[in-house]
Order: sequence, then C-alpha cells, then structure tokens
Amino acid sequence: MVESSALKSWISYDEANHFPLENIPFGAFLDPKENKKACCTRIGDKVIDLSVLEHERLFDGPLFTNLDRHVFCEENLNKFMELGSAYRKEARESLQKIFADGSSILSEELKAKVLFETADVQLLLPVFIRDYTDFYSSKNHAYNVGCMFRGPDNALQPNWLHIPIGYHGRASSIVVSGTEIRRPKGQVSADKINPTWSQCNRLDLELEMGTFIGRANPLGDPIKVNDAKDYIFGYTLLNDWSARDLQVWEYVPLGPFNAKNFASTIAPWVITPEALEPFKTPLPEQEPKMMPYLQDKDLSSYDVSLDILIKTPKLDAPHKLATSNFKHLYYSVAQTIAHHSSTGCNMSVGDMLGSGTISGPEKSAYGSMLELCWGGKEVIALPNGEERKFLNDGDSIILRGACKGNGYTIGFGEAEGTIIPAHDESYYTA
Amino acid sequence: MVESSALKSWISYDEANHFPLENIPFGAFLDPKENKKACCTRIGDKVIDLSVLEHERLFDGPLFTNLDRHVFCEENLNKFMELGSAYRKEARESLQKIFADGSSILSEELKAKVLFETADVQLLLPVFIRDYTDFYSSKNHAYNVGCMFRGPDNALQPNWLHIPIGYHGRASSIVVSGTEIRRPKGQVSADKINPTWSQCNRLDLELEMGTFIGRANPLGDPIKVNDAKDYIFGYTLLNDWSARDLQVWEYVPLGPFNAKNFASTIAPWVITPEALEPFKTPLPEQEPKMMPYLQDKDLSSYDVSLDILIKTPKLDAPHKLATSNFKHLYYSVAQTIAHHSSTGCNMSVGDMLGSGTISGPEKSAYGSMLELCWGGKEVIALPNGEERKFLNDGDSIILRGACKGNGYTIGFGEAEGTIIPAHDESYYTA
Repeated sequence: MVESSALKSWISYDEANHFPLENIPFGAFLDPKENKKACCTRIGDKVIDLSVLEHERLFDGPLFTNLDRHVFCEENLNKFMELGSAYRKEARESLQKIFADGSSILSEELKAKVLFETADVQLLLPVFIRDYTDFYSSKNHAYNVGCMFRGPDNALQPNWLHIPIGYHGRASSIVVSGTEIRRPKGQVSADKINPTWSQCNRLDLELEMGTFIGRANPLGDPIKVNDAKDYIFGYTLLNDWSARDLQVWEYVPLGPFNAKNFASTIAPWVITPEALEPFKTPLPEQEPKMMPYLQDKDLSSYDVSLDILIKTPKLDAPHKLATSNFKHLYYSVAQTIAHHSSTGCNMSVGDMLGSGTISGPEKSAYGSMLELCWGGKEVIALPNGEERKFLNDGDSIILRGACKGNGYTIGFGEAEGTIIPAHDESYYTA
Repeated sequence: MVESSALKSWISYDEANHFPLENIPFGAFLDPKENKKACCTRIGDKVIDLSVLEHERLFDGPLFTNLDRHVFCEENLNKFMELGSAYRKEARESLQKIFADGSSILSEELKAKVLFETADVQLLLPVFIRDYTDFYSSKNHAYNVGCMFRGPDNALQPNWLHIPIGYHGRASSIVVSGTEIRRPKGQVSADKINPTWSQCNRLDLELEMGTFIGRANPLGDPIKVNDAKDYIFGYTLLNDWSARDLQVWEYVPLGPFNAKNFASTIAPWVITPEALEPFKTPLPEQEPKMMPYLQDKDLSSYDVSLDILIKTPKLDAPHKLATSNFKHLYYSVAQTIAHHSSTGCNMSVGDMLGSGTISGPEKSAYGSMLELCWGGKEVIALPNGEERKFLNDGDSIILRGACKGNGYTIGFGEAEGTIIPAHDESYYTA
C-alpha cells in the first residue's frame, strides 16, 4: 500500500473530493438566511466564511496582523487580491492551520458561524472582472479551426507561431456557474453576402481556463515575461459560449463580437498557483524560437485534466464529450501576459485572461463542439441514441477540472450552464 | 443685427467659449490644495464643484430633494449616472438656475468654495469606464481603409452595410486629455510572414466620438433600437491611438489587439443629449434597408464640427490637419446600442461606445493620418516645412469639437496627447 501524502483536516472528505486541505480555493458567497455576502473558501463539502475568521483575527501571520483594513467582508475577492501574492500565501497557511486535523483553534460556537453546507449557500461570481481578454493559445485548436476554414496546408496563420494571438472580450456578461444561458439571435448568412435574422443555430461551448490577474502594472510599462507569474492570482474553469453562425458573418475584419458577448460562464472557485504547484508541467519547446520579450525560462503549464460533459433533458446522467488538459497549450500564461502588456497596456487586479479553447491532439480531447462535429460534417452520438452537432435548448454543459495527487485531488469544481430558448420577436421591435 | 438667443450667466464668457450656460457638461476634478476629488461642471472658464452645491442642498428639484444619498462627492460620475436621465435633466435645470444672470442663490462665501479657475485644478477621467466597445460606423472611413487594402471595387466588406461592425476594446488604458502617450513596441512584418521586433513606426490617431451609457439592461434582454436613446448619458471626444504596423501583422483572425490597447485619450467633459438637442441632424437614408431590430425611427446624429490639430516641437502654433463632423456617420449610436445588446449582452452604467474613426467625404475631413497620407503614399505638409506621414516623438494631437448656436457655442473642450519615446530594451528582457 502506497502511503498517502495527503494532509488531514478535521473536516472529513474522501480522496476524490475537489477541495481537500491542500487546495484552499477562494470564492464569494451569499448566505440567504442572513442576506450576507462574504468571501469564502471550501474544504470538503463545507463553505467557510472568511470574514468571520478575519473578524476574529484568526489570520494571525505577520502580514494580516499588521493589516489596517478588512478584505473578506466583501461580495468579491478583489480587495484581497489587491494585497498581493504574499498575503494570499499567508492566508492559505493560516487556513491550513485552522482546519488541520487536531486543531482546536475554532470553538464550537465559531464553527457554527463559519461553516456552511454547500447546498445552503449561493456561490457568487468570485471576482469583479475588470477587463477580459481571450487568447488562442492551443495549437491543436487553432490548427483544427484553420483546417476547417482553409485546409491543412494553410491551417495556421503566419502570425500564429510568433504571437500569442488574443482579443479583447466582454467583461460584463461573464456569469457564475449555474446561470441560465439565453440562446442569442443575430445576423447569419449562408452565402456570406445576404444575411438573415435568426436565432443562433450553431450554439457552441469553448473549454478554456481563465487566469485572474492579481497585480497591476502602470500604464506604459510592460511586464517582463519572467516576472509575469507574480501577476497571477489564480485560475478558474471558463466556458466561452460561442454563436458560430453569427461569428462567420460578423468577424471580418475586426474579430468576434456578438458571437461571444452574450455570456461566458466561470466556476465559482479560484484555484491558486500554490495549490497547483505540484502539478506544474513543462510545455513543448517552441519552434521557431520566440522573440526575446517572449522567452519564458520556465515555459510551463499545469497537468489539469479537463472534462466536458453534456446533459440533455432525456439523458439519465451527464455524458462526457471530451477530456482535454490545461497542459495542451503552446503559449504559457506568462507569455500571454508579457505580450498583452508589451505595448504598455496596463493589467488591473481582477482582469481575466482566457486561454482560448484547449484542445488535445486526439479527437477525444477536442475542446469545442465545432471540432467534435468537425464543422457540422459529423454527428456527436449520445448514449441514449440522441445526436448533436451543436447545443439544443435545454442542454446543459458542465466543465470539470482536477489534478490527481498522491492520495488527494486538487479540483476546480464545475462551470455549468443550461441553454434556454431565444426570446420571441417582441423583444426586438416596438 | 440678429438678436442672440443665448442664455445669460453671472459668470462671464464670450460667444466662442465652449461652456456657456446652455452646455452644462459633467466631469470630475482634483483640487490639489485640499487634495479633494469631486464631480464638477464648467461655465466659461470656471470649474464648479458640484459636491458643495449638493451638500448645501441647492439641487432643489423634487428628485434630488428626495434622494437619500450624495452622488457628487466622488472621483467620477458613475454614481450620478446610475440615477438615470431624469436626475441628469433636473441637475442641469438647477445649475442653469443657480448660475443664471441675476441669481443670488450663491452667497459670496459659497462662491469662493464652489468656483475654481480651470488652471488651478486637475481634471480627471470623468467616468470609470466599465466595458469599452469600438464601432466602425463611418462609411467614408470604412471605404477609405478598404480602398487601401482591397481596392475601390471591394472596399466595403459584404457585412458592412448590414451590421454596425464593432469590437471589444481595452477599458483600462483609456486616459484623460493631457496624459502622455508612450510609443509602443511590438511585432511588425513587412512581408506578413517574417516578423521583427520594433518600435511602432506608424503611430496614428483616430478621431472618434465616445458615447457613455447611463442605464443598464439585464443580461439576456436586448435594448430595442427605438428605446436606445434613453440609455445614453452623454458624449465625449475620443482619440483611439493606433499602431498601424502592429495592426496589419496581428489582426487576422481575431481583430486589432496590441495595436490599440496601449492608450485611448478622451476629453475631460461629458456633453449631454440635452445640450446637443438643438444640433440634432438626420442621417442619410440607409440602403439596403435595415433588418427590423435596427430600424431607427429617429435616425440621427448631431452637427458637431470636429477638428484634428497637430503640434510639433518646431511649430509655433497647432496646425489643423482636418475638420470632420459627428454627422458623418452611417449608423446611429442608437443602432450600435441595439446591435450590441441584440444577443442579450448587458450594457452597464459607465460603458463607453466609440463611433469608430469619423471621416467626411472630402480629404480635408479624413479622421486619421492613415487616410490623410493614404497609407503612406503621400506626405502631410506642415506650414513650417515639416512633413509627416505618421506621428513623431514629441508631436501632440489635439481633438476639438463644437456646435455653433445662435450667439453661443456648445463645445466639447479638447482631447490632447503628446507622444513620448518608446522604452529601451531593458524594459522587456531580464
């Protein structure tokens, strides 16, 4: 028997639970009974109110002891994020001490105030997202999409191997897991000349990872690629819903707009670099060699297994469509930060950078239905005999992410969204 | 002699002043002596502290009288904007009464607290800009750029006459007039295959108008085109600085990114729909006819003359490069709001929508140096013998906007920015 290296907590959970004492994710919640919002973490199936621990001065490391303000009695993590990575690490250590097996730091009275059953609270969008940028960092995904549109010989654009291509996204419509997704309407054009008004009939998901920025740079001053990791607060699951039929008509020459801005779904938990450190994995060597401003001496990602599951009204249980991995990237997150800021563009605390759809080399690892149905040429068979190319009304997509440790799991929870029907025409015309 | 229809104020100013009693722009300022930030308006050359008037309960209309909170003791206008258009109109009426010729509402003591010389204060970014979207609504500009890249026969993309094309921009790097603009560096490629690292050598301005959103719609629910005007808080001058050489290499397939995200400059004043109402002007009929969700029954813009001036270190005075007009649009701002939200995308209070570069039909009305030098094929001659195609270090660009009334001017002030040299390589590599 291999001895488990897992930490032990006085909160019980099993080895597959996403939130062991090694994880310490950060989020925000609403206690509906008290109508109170606060920052939280989670251990096992318990949501933990950080504002009470802060009020009781149980964050007793040197940084928090000398802090002149409260940061957890907030409806999002931004005030905590602004403190910087040293505070995040210290808060993590305090929490691992308070909840360690054998610790008697919390009285029974305090336990009753601090611990919530997950089912009894509402998890909120964990971060006020300042600016949202979406990259295109998976070579398999860029190649697959390029093959569909231009054939295998010209699949990658000439710039793709030199620049971590990205574009500005819509921050306001990023929602937390569980929020219903209204099917959009828009202009579509089969011949790319004559458009018609239609509901989106090629509604897709995109499996991505979102990176939250926790440190700002002044406008005008780039972030060096080898300093970029210190600007990362943490990571979350991201489903960048896409209206493929709207996209092909609108995107020349300024890029995707209405095809993306109706909604993006993230998981309620932010997973820290500290929790992911044991799962760091190098990325493949880049050829051609990057320009100096992109030469990342620690070119790496994390070995996070990423599942896409679909649930239809007729399916008994969610069905796995694909399994990809956060390591299937060509560009590191640090390279995207360095490129983004290389013009002097200022990153803000609360910015979210999407990785772009993460596809592995095999079909079973493709990160979008566009790729799984190969642009609509194939069908995706479900175990109950149903078929899909894109999403129907009533379908739910669930993203899950997890790292397998020795005797424990570092999980990302879920990012779930269910498609509800498009509005009728009375919503559009007087 | 034509009798002037101008209102009279006890603050004196001449007919050409941008800020008569008819205007009542909104902004925010820092009083450096007291280190105090507050919202403000301007009459003639006086900046007026609205927080003091609010504290003294001089906004005495029914809405403000019953308001349970202060909105002007803030470093931006967002809290005021959130109140909605009825409050904006009431505040305007109160200010026109307080500062009308003959009014004795303000004691001498209060006047000393409320009035500042413009030169004694620092004007701030007037709005916390939530999401920034840039449109492409001037047909002349889209046609000119298309001619350069694809020739006159295919100048307009097939989608252009059907969709108000737009893309998500970078909100964090929008700065107020007077902020220096650091020349960016980035990847450029003469052959569009092999890139090199370079400072931007085709640094350009874009003459635009920015529209501020003052009302939110819930995610999922579109804004009808004929309701869209009530979502507009006001307008400002916008210079969307552009790195043309970075843009041509990076923009396929996801649109402009680093070419735009280093900075955009706005004027410090927001001009209201009420001030602009006398200058409303219909836009030309649209052919082909718009789809129903874009059929604007009041298809219009405003007759605002827009000047681009350049100042070089060797020029004695700013030199006018072009004069365009806010009426040189194909799509109305209401149509851009309806299109943007047609997917259900939620507008937020504080969003800014750029019009896109506004070019008139004549060369003297082109809104960018790219057009004025026709992609680098011609030179722009300055009166002292200097020549330009794009911007040199040390050059300043000043945008000005004004409407000519009967005996008065409704002005937008200025949006000014000066180019400072790119950073050396030590800023990019360890």
